Amino acid sequence: MQFDSLDDIRSFCRDLPGGDARAADAAALRQQTLTKPPGSLGRLEALATWLARWQGREIPKLDRVTIAVFAGNHGIAARGVSAYPQAVTEQMVANFANGGAAINQIAGLAGADLRVVPIELDRPTRDFTVAAAMDVGEFLSAVDIGYRTVPPDADLLAVGEMGIANTTTAAMLCAALLGGGAAQWAGRGTGVDDAGLARKRAAIEAALDLHRKILGDPLAVAAALGGRELAAIAGAILAARANQIPVLLDGFVATAAIVPLTRLDIGILDHCCAGHVSAESGHRALLREFGLEALLDLNMRLGEASGAGVAILLLRAALACHGGMATFTEAGVSGAEK
Amino acid sequence: MQFDSLDDIRSFCRDLPGGDARAADAAALRQQTLTKPPGSLGRLEALATWLARWQGREIPKLDRVTIAVFAGNHGIAARGVSAYPQAVTEQMVANFANGGAAINQIAGLAGADLRVVPIELDRPTRDFTVAAAMDVGEFLSAVDIGYRTVPPDADLLAVGEMGIANTTTAAMLCAALLGGGAAQWAGRGTGVDDAGLARKRAAIEAALDLHRKILGDPLAVAAALGGRELAAIAGAILAARANQIPVLLDGFVATAAIVPLTRLDIGILDHCCAGHVSAESGHRALLREFGLEALLDLNMRLGEASGAGVAILLLRAALACHGGMATFTEAGVSGAEK
Repeated sequence: MQFDSLDDIRSFCRDLPGGDARAADAAALRQQTLTKPPGSLGRLEALATWLARWQGREIPKLDRVTIAVFAGNHGIAARGVSAYPQAVTEQMVANFANGGAAINQIAGLAGADLRVVPIELDRPTRDFTVAAAMDVGEFLSAVDIGYRTVPPDADLLAVGEMGIANTTTAAMLCAALLGGGAAQWAGRGTGVDDAGLARKRAAIEAALDLHRKILGDPLAVAAALGGRELAAIAGAILAARANQIPVLLDGFVATAAIVPLTRLDIGILDHCCAGHVSAESGHRALLREFGLEALLDLNMRLGEASGAGVAILLLRAALACHGGMATFTEAGVSGAEK
Repeated sequence: MQFDSLDDIRSFCRDLPGGDARAADAAALRQQTLTKPPGSLGRLEALATWLARWQGREIPKLDRVTIAVFAGNHGIAARGVSAYPQAVTEQMVANFANGGAAINQIAGLAGADLRVVPIELDRPTRDFTVAAAMDVGEFLSAVDIGYRTVPPDADLLAVGEMGIANTTTAAMLCAALLGGGAAQWAGRGTGVDDAGLARKRAAIEAALDLHRKILGDPLAVAAALGGRELAAIAGAILAARANQIPVLLDGFVATAAIVPLTRLDIGILDHCCAGHVSAESGHRALLREFGLEALLDLNMRLGEASGAGVAILLLRAALACHGGMATFTEAGVSGAEK
């Protein structure tokens, strides 16, 4: 399945494929038999059941784990909203290719295949304070790139991004579709100073005004106020859903990328788990809005799927217990006294 | 160094060996050069620096990681304070030996050497509502066992426990040495019902009254109101400090085991990190008391070092980044604009 029009995406979100309740129930039952007080592994138990639901297997596996990192450049960077020059996006993509970034180390540790996908870095989106960042064709093209990045047989997908100025874009999407204004969503990103933060907020407020007529249309907002790497993340989330692949979300930008889809149907989050909550201030508010509880809260704010990548380790722990522990009967351990 | 008397322990805690500030400073400086905005790896950066401090190496290693799980039985179990029969302690030790427990799977995933140390399971401590749980000789013997379990050349120690009824013992130590009464510290443990919880609290209140004359002496409390596996954990913490080995603490019981040492000098916690915060209610209060922020909050409450074991994975992620990332100079990535 791919998307040739915004309507294709709308159709998909109107009729979301569900998970496998039978596999989830079997996994939950299995947890009850393992040598531990019921529920005592907490979220590790819930994660095993969640993976079972989306993989359709009582005993899920993580043999093929893909980390997808999409990179894009942003016209809004010209407004002085980032502490780093735009050239860093491409420099970091080279760093990913050379194995020197945090996500390279984390992917190696987590046994994941890292796919870095730069999207037209030499053609930044337009500055959304003066025009639409992308037209519909550009948006769909980025969605398609994201969609095609996901191996249909992956056991798990972790999604992240790289893009100088893209916390401004992320805050833009949140402010446009969730309300609350720039102040609620715009934070310091990679470490912008007070003046930079003020410019960031002013840009968002200006764009809210300029684009006020489309704010009721989530996908029009995703194009006009979004970014290529965010659109690609949305595409990857759709591909994962179509292929029954559970997803670990990274930080603020990766989560904000799905906001337009959640406005079509909040159920798009059912196959997604928040790998971590970022120190970037808008992320905690966004997860609360979505009713998602992050697996990790380590004050990270790097992006590039680093938080989601670390969270893969927790899924591995969950499955090691789920698949490897003895049952009460096998081990000859007494149960609770009635 | 070992401890032939309570005074030996007191002496050790009066003059605690410190960490290596030079190694910690070098590690913190190194973090500033890596290809990421300063501080953006959050606690992963702090963990690398903490490991550097205690290992005395700018680039710490985790080649030899030991998980120590101590097991003991408790006279207080006869008061009906647990949902499980006392025989489960020994049954679970057999399960550990056979590789069927959660910690076996987690240790395997984390690349850790698991040492399970049952301590006189056929000789439970005495019921502390009627007598001293241990005399000084018994206490020192358990401390010694814990001390000798730690390989002097370990790079990291994770400590946990197994012992039916030992959340009652843990709550007992907290109530005796930190105040707040049984209600603050006694929770449901492995899943005791309301009546069991009431018995648990009554037992603690009765023991507070019976032993009121020794409550000012932390080590006397550790003997009279503690347990063998808790004493062994204290011994292991001391051994780790003597050998400059950083420690990951597990849940409520493992953390409560150190309360007596913290009353001698709170600095005993400097080489310790809270691997997770347990769902057992007293643990969060205890970590707050100690000013420790747990690495993980996954609603786990199994004990047997399971939370600390999962946290080893986070330390590995921290060191993978710390040791493996390129610097800005190496990667040709631009720094922040001034």
